Amino acid sequence: MSTNIPTVPMTLEGASVLHQMLRVDWNAWTALDDERRAALVDELSQWLDAQSGSAAFGMLGHKGDLMLVHYRQDFAELLAAQRAVQRLGIGAYLSATSSYLSVVELGLYESTRKIVDELKAKGLQPGTEEWDKAVEETLERQRGAMRGRLWPEIPNTKYICFYPMDRRRGEEKNWYTVPFAERQRMMHEHGLVGRKYGGLVKQIISGSIGFDDWEWGVDLYADDALWFKRLIYEMRFDEVSAAYALFGAFYIGVRLKADELSSFFRPQTA
Amino acid sequence: MSTNIPTVPMTLEGASVLHQMLRVDWNAWTALDDERRAALVDELSQWLDAQSGSAAFGMLGHKGDLMLVHYRQDFAELLAAQRAVQRLGIGAYLSATSSYLSVVELGLYESTRKIVDELKAKGLQPGTEEWDKAVEETLERQRGAMRGRLWPEIPNTKYICFYPMDRRRGEEKNWYTVPFAERQRMMHEHGLVGRKYGGLVKQIISGSIGFDDWEWGVDLYADDALWFKRLIYEMRFDEVSAAYALFGAFYIGVRLKADELSSFFRPQTA
Amino acid sequence: MSTNIPTVPMTLEGASVLHQMLRVDWNAWTALDDERRAALVDELSQWLDAQSGSAAFGMLGHKGDLMLVHYRQDFAELLAAQRAVQRLGIGAYLSATSSYLSVVELGLYESTRKIVDELKAKGLQPGTEEWDKAVEETLERQRGAMRGRLWPEIPNTKYICFYPMDRRRGEEKNWYTVPFAERQRMMHEHGLVGRKYGGLVKQIISGSIGFDDWEWGVDLYADDALWFKRLIYEMRFDEVSAAYALFGAFYIGVRLKADELSSFFRPQTA
Amino acid sequence: MSTNIPTVPMTLEGASVLHQMLRVDWNAWTALDDERRAALVDELSQWLDAQSGSAAFGMLGHKGDLMLVHYRQDFAELLAAQRAVQRLGIGAYLSATSSYLSVVELGLYESTRKIVDELKAKGLQPGTEEWDKAVEETLERQRGAMRGRLWPEIPNTKYICFYPMDRRRGEEKNWYTVPFAERQRMMHEHGLVGRKYGGLVKQIISGSIGFDDWEWGVDLYADDALWFKRLIYEMRFDEVSAAYALFGAFYIGVRLKADELSSFFRPQTA
Amino acid sequence: MSTNIPTVPMTLEGASVLHQMLRVDWNAWTALDDERRAALVDELSQWLDAQSGSAAFGMLGHKGDLMLVHYRQDFAELLAAQRAVQRLGIGAYLSATSSYLSVVELGLYESTRKIVDELKAKGLQPGTEEWDKAVEETLERQRGAMRGRLWPEIPNTKYICFYPMDRRRGEEKNWYTVPFAERQRMMHEHGLVGRKYGGLVKQIISGSIGFDDWEWGVDLYADDALWFKRLIYEMRFDEVSAAYALFGAFYIGVRLKADELSSFFRPQTA
Repeated sequence: MSTNIPTVPMTLEGASVLHQMLRVDWNAWTALDDERRAALVDELSQWLDAQSGSAAFGMLGHKGDLMLVHYRQDFAELLAAQRAVQRLGIGAYLSATSSYLSVVELGLYESTRKIVDELKAKGLQPGTEEWDKAVEETLERQRGAMRGRLWPEIPNTKYICFYPMDRRRGEEKNWYTVPFAERQRMMHEHGLVGRKYGGLVKQIISGSIGFDDWEWGVDLYADDALWFKRLIYEMRFDEVSAAYALFGAFYIGVRLKADELSSFFRPQTA
Repeated sequence: MSTNIPTVPMTLEGASVLHQMLRVDWNAWTALDDERRAALVDELSQWLDAQSGSAAFGMLGHKGDLMLVHYRQDFAELLAAQRAVQRLGIGAYLSATSSYLSVVELGLYESTRKIVDELKAKGLQPGTEEWDKAVEETLERQRGAMRGRLWPEIPNTKYICFYPMDRRRGEEKNWYTVPFAERQRMMHEHGLVGRKYGGLVKQIISGSIGFDDWEWGVDLYADDALWFKRLIYEMRFDEVSAAYALFGAFYIGVRLKADELSSFFRPQTA
Repeated sequence: MSTNIPTVPMTLEGASVLHQMLRVDWNAWTALDDERRAALVDELSQWLDAQSGSAAFGMLGHKGDLMLVHYRQDFAELLAAQRAVQRLGIGAYLSATSSYLSVVELGLYESTRKIVDELKAKGLQPGTEEWDKAVEETLERQRGAMRGRLWPEIPNTKYICFYPMDRRRGEEKNWYTVPFAERQRMMHEHGLVGRKYGGLVKQIISGSIGFDDWEWGVDLYADDALWFKRLIYEMRFDEVSAAYALFGAFYIGVRLKADELSSFFRPQTA
Repeated sequence: MSTNIPTVPMTLEGASVLHQMLRVDWNAWTALDDERRAALVDELSQWLDAQSGSAAFGMLGHKGDLMLVHYRQDFAELLAAQRAVQRLGIGAYLSATSSYLSVVELGLYESTRKIVDELKAKGLQPGTEEWDKAVEETLERQRGAMRGRLWPEIPNTKYICFYPMDRRRGEEKNWYTVPFAERQRMMHEHGLVGRKYGGLVKQIISGSIGFDDWEWGVDLYADDALWFKRLIYEMRFDEVSAAYALFGAFYIGVRLKADELSSFFRPQTA
Repeated sequence: MSTNIPTVPMTLEGASVLHQMLRVDWNAWTALDDERRAALVDELSQWLDAQSGSAAFGMLGHKGDLMLVHYRQDFAELLAAQRAVQRLGIGAYLSATSSYLSVVELGLYESTRKIVDELKAKGLQPGTEEWDKAVEETLERQRGAMRGRLWPEIPNTKYICFYPMDRRRGEEKNWYTVPFAERQRMMHEHGLVGRKYGGLVKQIISGSIGFDDWEWGVDLYADDALWFKRLIYEMRFDEVSAAYALFGAFYIGVRLKADELSSFFRPQTA
């Protein structure tokens, strides 16, 4: 589909992702009797366990109390997950304060160039049917090779950091008018910083152009939240971030597995 | 009316459009007994069926639960549709979180030039009564020829993507001070990208200058939501989008026909 | 008072104007019995009839359900009108979602120049008491001559379009640093476009510097809402609008006279 | 403390000021019986009378119903006043929609220069203890001389206009990088316009850097609200306002003395 | 980790900080009987006393009624503190209006340079394992030396001023593209102003990149609130603030120790 290569980088898509930021109606919740409450938390825990791609986090601050992250096959399944949460007994005590809809994505700034060169070397011409078919075959092969990163499990860390971001489209500085080779170079340098934190912070990028109010969603997972700050602060000096990154709200959550979920929702200190 | 041609492109208008983003009061809804609930969903389904230009979508995320899209003859009919939804039994469980008001529109960047040339060739002068009459006659002919696109049916796809947008009026980059021929060229290139996705994404543009807070509304309809992202991402590198497009919030919905509507509103998983 | 002429254009002020955007609590309203409801709508209708300068409009979209527009002698009378609406029986079912406070205004870009020239020709000097007195006398004469436009009746059309606007005060483009003669020329060209739509759209400009969050309020009245879009779209290419106009939210309403008011507030379709 | 003179203008501070914008719960209020309501309004009136620095205004539009303005010795006294209002019987029917916290301030652009020159003439050096002590003594003398303006009574006019404002800190136009002498010249010209309206509009400037979300608060008091618009419109063409002033929301109130307060809160038209 | 020195300044982190801005439901609170109310305030007081790093402030204006500031070991402990407040009896009468999440931070603009020079003098190369280890050892030593500033007690003053801020990343003026030496010089000059107010205002800087919506949080503590304004106003003329500082909302609180807390929550004036 992308014949103007190398203007638009080729992109691989994987899992559909919904972040739900939810407020707990603590007063109504506290008014329940212990047994009922325990049953409702149990039901939520069991539902989470039964899903392969859903996890719960306790949120810090006023932006919500509970963050649920869902990875699914497509948007119809995400809508089903969203309705399923509302249908749980605990759903009556939750209301949405925010959310984010996106699709796990790998932007192929490096490969795009290579693929185009190879196809041109084979004598194919952009804009022809043969070209489009060859591109699609190559992408399909890469989707297979990248399967693990496109359809990831939710990392098993203590903390999550989620934020949406844009590439700047200012009157002077405009990412979308920067030549492909320049963008490729900046994205490459950007990637090097991320790699330095590879063992400490697990990063999942999802695309949301056409789906939500920012262009990308970023999930960072780590066992020590300080690495979120260190990684993002260092990246902020990258050329691509310094000049072209705009950031939305930041959401921090503490992982709630079955046990912690139960103690999080307990109205008395244990 | 447009004597300064070729500054202002001629424009054809068709159906009046209202997008309603609605929140469901799930707690009150769940408190109803099954029979009453079924009756209310039935009533909504029948009302939707009885309208030629209304459709329902389940919304992803916190921006609303239900999106209703209405195409009508004029704004008075849209107000009647809005009041009709409030008057339905289910209306008591719905509240508006957002909305968008617009009119289906075809901007004639290509034809404007041709029409002006033809009329001048006939010896007519802009600003005269004859000129205005000849322009109006031409537009009326085009309204007839474009009837299908100006008064469209709501496409029968699984997903909808709606967003409003502006042309930038910045201190440096200002669409409204770009010469007509330049705008025509950029819109032409923009259209070529849209055409590539023609079989995959059905696009309906509506104008909202003077009606709502952005200048245009865009509805995309597709059976696979990924095409929304691919189309909009590729377009973002167009000159006209890169330099002159500003985007509002994005709303994604999953089509709810009678059956799905009934299961969407069921308080238990089937 | 304006001695620095020709920097500040002379301005004539007339009626004080309040736009009220109100939400109806439909659930509480529907819960009333028919007789009570009819009595409350009657009371509102009679109150509106008894005012010379108040009118009601049904609003499209989520920004409100009912728009009330009040023209009065001064702000104290507007406050009385606002309290009077709250005191009506129906007031208990209305809450404000937005509002706009302004004063009908005629900016004398053309006359300012002429007046200054005439007074200078008479040997008067700006900044003197004689000058100020002569200016005030001239303005008073013009207030008399323009009485009909300064103290207008609310036009009797089917649709209203209201929006607030600013003149841009950007770092580069700044209306308030443009020389008077340039501003006068741009406002003159701007006025010519408005005049073309004279028979189709009735326009009332009110000033809100010091009164509300934008500098001006614009009311357009027409029997066909499409003319709002056509007029504003054509104006958007004017030099003064293209470079110096910033727009707030747009509100569209459908006129509700006594009969329509009654049917608008009926909880069942007639 | 300000040794970098003449970068930072010396400033005198006086009364601490809190503006409270409050919504009345009219439905709950109306549900009270007449006697109870009269008693609560009486209690509010008596409380206001007993304060030397508090006044009430009926607000136009949807930003609130009642504005209370409090002038006090310091912030602890303002907190006491705020709690006192909540503790009044009527406090149960009021909720805050907005507020503004500031301190009456006189910016000494003119005197700063003179003081510095005098102290230098005496052989004192900026940055020394002697210099700081001499500056503080001078300021203390001025605080005494300006006592009436620093600790003003709330002017006894019919209308109030309140708005917050900033000096622009843009990428190009930045007030805080303009040389002192330039700023002094612009502030001087700005003051001349204000002086022209001296008999018609009473102006009280308060500083809110470090206290609230804008840098200054402006209170205008007049018996005819039109003068607010005329004064601010003329000032908008001043160099300092045109290039460097950014404005927040505007709040207009009508003075409610004991009698008017009683009639304002009456649920029926008298 | 920071091999690109001297691009990214080295940074020391200490206590995790949560600011909670809370609204009191005064009507429900007032409806309690005196005994119950006293018991709930006692419980809160005792909880605060039992924490080494929590304090309460009465808030001025509409942004909230009560500010709780918590300093803890990490985010998990902050989440526990947040849940503990909700679990207190008084928690049922509090709801969050805002919050801020950050980590106490010392930016080592001065030392970064020195450390790099020393390590290079020892023959170490940036980007090597030895370099990273040596840097980490140096930082660890500094963390020890700076322990008191990294893990501060909440200063025992009458007033608090909290606000978040960013360094500007504009199209022209962009902090993150300024050479390290320039940034170091500007931060040095900025620090000199702060030092002048050292005895009057206690300042605690916390970093929030990756944690909350602004890059830094600033807490100022003083016994006279005027010093907040004087300090921030003087700093606003610093090169780094004038050109590169963007500010969020400002929150002012009056310290509530056990006695004051009790009188603050009393529904009648003592």
